[in-house]
Amino acid sequence: MSNPGRLASFYSELQASRLDVGLPLPSVLKNSFNVVDGPPSSAAGNPDEIAKLFPNLFGQPSAMLVPGDSSGALSSNQSLKIGVVLSGGQAPGGHNVICGIFDYLQERTKGSTLYGFRGGPAGIMNCKYVELTTDFIYPYRNQGGFDMICSGRDKIETPEQFKQAEETAQKLNLDGLVVIGGDDSNTNACLLAENFRAKNLKTRVIGCPKTIDGDLKCKEVPTSFGFDTACKVYAEMIGNVMIDARSTGKYYHFVRLMGRAASHIALECALQTHPNITIIGEEVAAKKLTLKNVTDYITDVICKRAELGFNYGVILVPEGLIDFIPEVQQLIAELNEILAHDVVDEEGNWKKKLRSQSHQLFEFLPQAIQEQLLLERDPHGNVQVAKIETEKMLIQMVEAELENRRSKGLYNKEFKGQHHFFGYEGRCGLPSNFDSNYCYALGYAAGVLLHSGKTGLISSVGNLGAPVEKWTVGGTALTSLMDVERRHGKFKPVIKKAMVELQGAPFKKFESLRDDWALKNRYFSPGPLQFTGKTANETNYTLMLELGAQA
Amino acid sequence: MSNPGRLASFYSELQASRLDVGLPLPSVLKNSFNVVDGPPSSAAGNPDEIAKLFPNLFGQPSAMLVPGDSSGALSSNQSLKIGVVLSGGQAPGGHNVICGIFDYLQERTKGSTLYGFRGGPAGIMNCKYVELTTDFIYPYRNQGGFDMICSGRDKIETPEQFKQAEETAQKLNLDGLVVIGGDDSNTNACLLAENFRAKNLKTRVIGCPKTIDGDLKCKEVPTSFGFDTACKVYAEMIGNVMIDARSTGKYYHFVRLMGRAASHIALECALQTHPNITIIGEEVAAKKLTLKNVTDYITDVICKRAELGFNYGVILVPEGLIDFIPEVQQLIAELNEILAHDVVDEEGNWKKKLRSQSHQLFEFLPQAIQEQLLLERDPHGNVQVAKIETEKMLIQMVEAELENRRSKGLYNKEFKGQHHFFGYEGRCGLPSNFDSNYCYALGYAAGVLLHSGKTGLISSVGNLGAPVEKWTVGGTALTSLMDVERRHGKFKPVIKKAMVELQGAPFKKFESLRDDWALKNRYFSPGPLQFTGKTANETNYTLMLELGAQA
Repeated sequence: MSNPGRLASFYSELQASRLDVGLPLPSVLKNSFNVVDGPPSSAAGNPDEIAKLFPNLFGQPSAMLVPGDSSGALSSNQSLKIGVVLSGGQAPGGHNVICGIFDYLQERTKGSTLYGFRGGPAGIMNCKYVELTTDFIYPYRNQGGFDMICSGRDKIETPEQFKQAEETAQKLNLDGLVVIGGDDSNTNACLLAENFRAKNLKTRVIGCPKTIDGDLKCKEVPTSFGFDTACKVYAEMIGNVMIDARSTGKYYHFVRLMGRAASHIALECALQTHPNITIIGEEVAAKKLTLKNVTDYITDVICKRAELGFNYGVILVPEGLIDFIPEVQQLIAELNEILAHDVVDEEGNWKKKLRSQSHQLFEFLPQAIQEQLLLERDPHGNVQVAKIETEKMLIQMVEAELENRRSKGLYNKEFKGQHHFFGYEGRCGLPSNFDSNYCYALGYAAGVLLHSGKTGLISSVGNLGAPVEKWTVGGTALTSLMDVERRHGKFKPVIKKAMVELQGAPFKKFESLRDDWALKNRYFSPGPLQFTGKTANETNYTLMLELGAQA
Repeated sequence: MSNPGRLASFYSELQASRLDVGLPLPSVLKNSFNVVDGPPSSAAGNPDEIAKLFPNLFGQPSAMLVPGDSSGALSSNQSLKIGVVLSGGQAPGGHNVICGIFDYLQERTKGSTLYGFRGGPAGIMNCKYVELTTDFIYPYRNQGGFDMICSGRDKIETPEQFKQAEETAQKLNLDGLVVIGGDDSNTNACLLAENFRAKNLKTRVIGCPKTIDGDLKCKEVPTSFGFDTACKVYAEMIGNVMIDARSTGKYYHFVRLMGRAASHIALECALQTHPNITIIGEEVAAKKLTLKNVTDYITDVICKRAELGFNYGVILVPEGLIDFIPEVQQLIAELNEILAHDVVDEEGNWKKKLRSQSHQLFEFLPQAIQEQLLLERDPHGNVQVAKIETEKMLIQMVEAELENRRSKGLYNKEFKGQHHFFGYEGRCGLPSNFDSNYCYALGYAAGVLLHSGKTGLISSVGNLGAPVEKWTVGGTALTSLMDVERRHGKFKPVIKKAMVELQGAPFKKFESLRDDWALKNRYFSPGPLQFTGKTANETNYTLMLELGAQA
């Protein structure tokens, strides 16, 4: 994979104007500070198993920066060799994490070197890197994307791969490595930290919380970067579509939003724009709803709106919706089994092999989806759930249910569905002021943690509801976020994805308003993300409500 | 269709901040002016036929406002009753046209009334209207959408419908009517003007140029409103997708852009973002390219990029692409014929009825598209060309061609296509400063033209490359934009759509750069539309290049 590098001369005015925007630092980072350890930590679940998996790291305390006299300050004469890697999908702000690490090293250490591993963890294993310099980094300041060093989805898993990582660490004489990634990548970072320590390598590893999905968070890490910007980009478009819906008066827009495992993006976009319907996967799962239930819920709202004279609307659907529906999971499991062993005959005799509920569900699905389930399979022969365009499927199912009601005289309007998928448009947007600042602080903090000899921590910036100066800075033991899962008969450590909490403040807020939004039109159009002016420094509802709820 | 009306209390900060932004007027409108007639006009084509169709209006001069002493000023004691209607698809800025008319009437006439016809031309025919007041209009100032009075696609065509329009004009004692619409709606406006004059009604009719597609323009009307904002919204998203493509390094993004008849939007977005490939429908038609030619062109670039190490890219496709391909038109005509009369047998014997070239093309199409062509028909039994997702079709055809080349050892990389359609997201965006100002001037000018007794003109604001103060203001005879088309044996007047000119400056600019963009990565990401700052008042490339080319 080549990367031609950016030239600021090819920048739009807005991109260029962002380059030299000064980034505020939390005041604790601007002066002398001490790094103070907290009490010993445990794990999110199964501490005994986590202790076995991380014998060198388990139980280590989290770290917090506190203002201090210069006596406790880290030596600025120490020169460090640090590597940084971007792991997994893009999220706005990643470049600023790297800028934060770089600036820390420049400002607080002497003669340090920052290496950027190219193309994700594979860059570590293959020792593909670039030395990051002031000039190299400059065109990426406050810019979206991950293309400074690019990213990748490889994992460092096998003993051979760990060996490769060790070789790279030794070859570059690395004092530290910053892994910028999601839950899996941070788990991987912790395994790497454990492994380096077990092998008595000096290389320490610090993680940074990245994912637009917003599902990597805990008390100490209130949000993952990128979520703020991505939701604002999607909300701009949803807001535009809402005005279009109201102006045209004849379309129902079904908008599928990226976010496979958790529905945070759909929930946040709902709070930002007030759509008529938002499906939250976690609620569907908790209430054990069927596809028919979801279809009926949507259809009920459409019929009620028709009575009020509104034959239009906007409906948000999380990308991972069908993963949350137990009966769909069951059907897919059965299909995978049947498709692996049997012939799918034209007459449909194969369907008799489905359990009754699955058979019923299959027949309930629109024909196009039935075909997709049967025809599109991955290299292992499995149904490709990710390829199902849920928004189209729902439109077809709602159409069928409306026809059903029409035949009973319960509905007599016209329904026209329009489908949208917002995903790639938001992953690389120009980072919001919040993400720019948050990422810079995360990177700066990662620099501090490595400088002070920490390993196996995730960079943690808190008190995010306050102005940047008052943000807290520290690191949280990655093992304290972990639980185990049994896979192939073995315990695997995992950082559990933070799902939408049905008792949490963001969902509660949504729940209290959704009936009003469903029938009245409370559309709220945030418009394009602004970088100056009144609202430029505001963050997102999810974060603010969660912070408020904790208070 | 109900319209609950907007409440500024449900506005986002950005929407609210736009409400009170003062709109600059061309200086000629700020002082005393005279309305000066130009020379007699002709028609864009077939003037004899146009003269027959518009006996009362043909040949009338265009009007131009020039600074004058107050002796020639229009009487501010005259109170006018004016109607306004939004016709056709949404375009950002429509509300400001209405505000411009309203403010003109408030400021320059005494006791005038402005009626907004609801839901498009149907509102005229059914006399459904609302009296527009300061308070009613306020929440829509500088806001996107058409929901102040909503729009519709009905036409006033039959003698009965003209009669209905007359009745409304008489009932409301209308002095004038402003029709805000595209080419068809302005043609309709001119027919209405002719009809009112023929019937000796006092109601005069003025048109305003609206369409995001950018295909309603001429020397006197340099651009249609909405094009600027819509392209900027799409360009934001394309720019984001580009950074994603470069960061991920493994996807080709195929982006279909709204704009059915002409490819102005695709061309403008290309000039704003520098994608690797942009297909311009007018070029495809002029060069009589086949679908295979287009596929080969895309595949060639993909293969060349693979050699350079780039297995990613961004490709723009105009919504109306397949309408530009003669062989596709032929195939569809034959399919319509066959499907109307014959049985489509499973064995495919029906295909023998296709001409050889059409048969070949049909077999060349991906299976999903073949099925779509056979299954999805409109109420008249015709193939629904508009429903074909061209971006998906191209991905599948490119995949097939790459497999073909792979089998010959000419390509050995991985190709992954991602498809996007950007349309509804841009039609109702918050209007750019340019569209806000341009629309306000168009509306103000329409007020002047009606006040001075003009009819059958389209509001014309020119010199748009200069600051607003220096813009020129006038009206152009709608008949001068017209030609005739023969439909059902009768001559019909039409304003010919302004297509992308292959000799025009915007296309020439694109042509001179596209090879560079194809292989190098010159991606340009404009970012979200800003309303303050350096670039906030810039307009679009198409307009600027066309203005430069005319100079």
